[in-house]
Amino acid sequence: MSIDNQKTVILIGAKGNMGQAALSGLRKHKVITASRSGEGCDYKVDITSEESLRKLYEDVGHFDAVVNTVGYCEYAEFTEMTEEQWNNTIQSKMIGQINIVRVGQEYIADNGSFSLITGILNIKPIPYAIADATTSGAIDTFVKCVAFEMPRGIRINSINPTVLEEAWDVYGEMMPGFHPVPGFLVGKAFERSVDGFITGQVLVVDAY
Amino acid sequence: MSIDNQKTVILIGAKGNMGQAALSGLRKHKVITASRSGEGCDYKVDITSEESLRKLYEDVGHFDAVVNTVGYCEYAEFTEMTEEQWNNTIQSKMIGQINIVRVGQEYIADNGSFSLITGILNIKPIPYAIADATTSGAIDTFVKCVAFEMPRGIRINSINPTVLEEAWDVYGEMMPGFHPVPGFLVGKAFERSVDGFITGQVLVVDAY
Repeated sequence: MSIDNQKTVILIGAKGNMGQAALSGLRKHKVITASRSGEGCDYKVDITSEESLRKLYEDVGHFDAVVNTVGYCEYAEFTEMTEEQWNNTIQSKMIGQINIVRVGQEYIADNGSFSLITGILNIKPIPYAIADATTSGAIDTFVKCVAFEMPRGIRINSINPTVLEEAWDVYGEMMPGFHPVPGFLVGKAFERSVDGFITGQVLVVDAY
Repeated sequence: MSIDNQKTVILIGAKGNMGQAALSGLRKHKVITASRSGEGCDYKVDITSEESLRKLYEDVGHFDAVVNTVGYCEYAEFTEMTEEQWNNTIQSKMIGQINIVRVGQEYIADNGSFSLITGILNIKPIPYAIADATTSGAIDTFVKCVAFEMPRGIRINSINPTVLEEAWDVYGEMMPGFHPVPGFLVGKAFERSVDGFITGQVLVVDAY
């Protein structure tokens, strides 16, 4: 076996808790970071814009993997949620992530991989999270189905974690009966997606 | 048991094959029909427009159930599918159906029900159908999660059928190894959704 398995990985949303969790699983790789603001990152990217994604991929040049940890969601009771709140969530968490793959498959290296982010609330629903859950369900389904038609050996998986220990102080109160997982374990899931041979998989990271 | 269990049901997409299949399961009810063109139906409605849905519900007045059989999808290879094709599919099959429920829950009678339509391709993927599959996955997830927060005893289910026998001559060639089901069986699923007590369920109607 070759031990020179270093890849060039674009990590979108690098500065957030989930981005840091993903980063912990990408230590052996060359990681190029990007985020919406670009602060503290190598590049600035807005995943809701095809043009912005295209610029990122062209500026980076060669890359073997894209790991995304961002997807903006709005939270409200279903009966109160407006069309605008639905649209904002669908544009970012769903269409934004589809854009990452749709545009990215033109640029990524042969046998590259995409790792998207969903979240446990489509499996374990809670109040206020219907738009998050619905778009997570969409992306988990997208990954399972699109894997069969990715060209040039390109793989795709989604990571579907529960809340991180690092974010439990913010979200814990809204999630009775949930138990957080440490970020490093979510990092392991991203590592398994990037460094393994699996495709079309939803990697659930939950405490029980 | 009371035998007077007739309900007033709004059937959207009544003239299509799927609408006729649904209709076969709604024979004991008072069915009010609607479609985009309005031709041969009681009402005209565009499910992508909140205003149009609101007008339908206000014009009908009292109703106990909404059965939807429409959701426009575009078909292409993933690598060829444009942002516009994705958006058209998401607007109709996903946001349109969410609109039906989001606006309809304000008007529907206590203990009413919504029955949405998805389709087998999120469970059994085929080429060209990634947008159909992704939005079906979104709606199946939506139904499973939103059921817990529907007010006033309102129920919601999705019907996820394979191709109808009545449509097999059009779609059969694209679906090797699939086997169609007769429309009346899909009608049974709509009947079970409308007349049962189940909620948050995906009713798969497939040959195997």
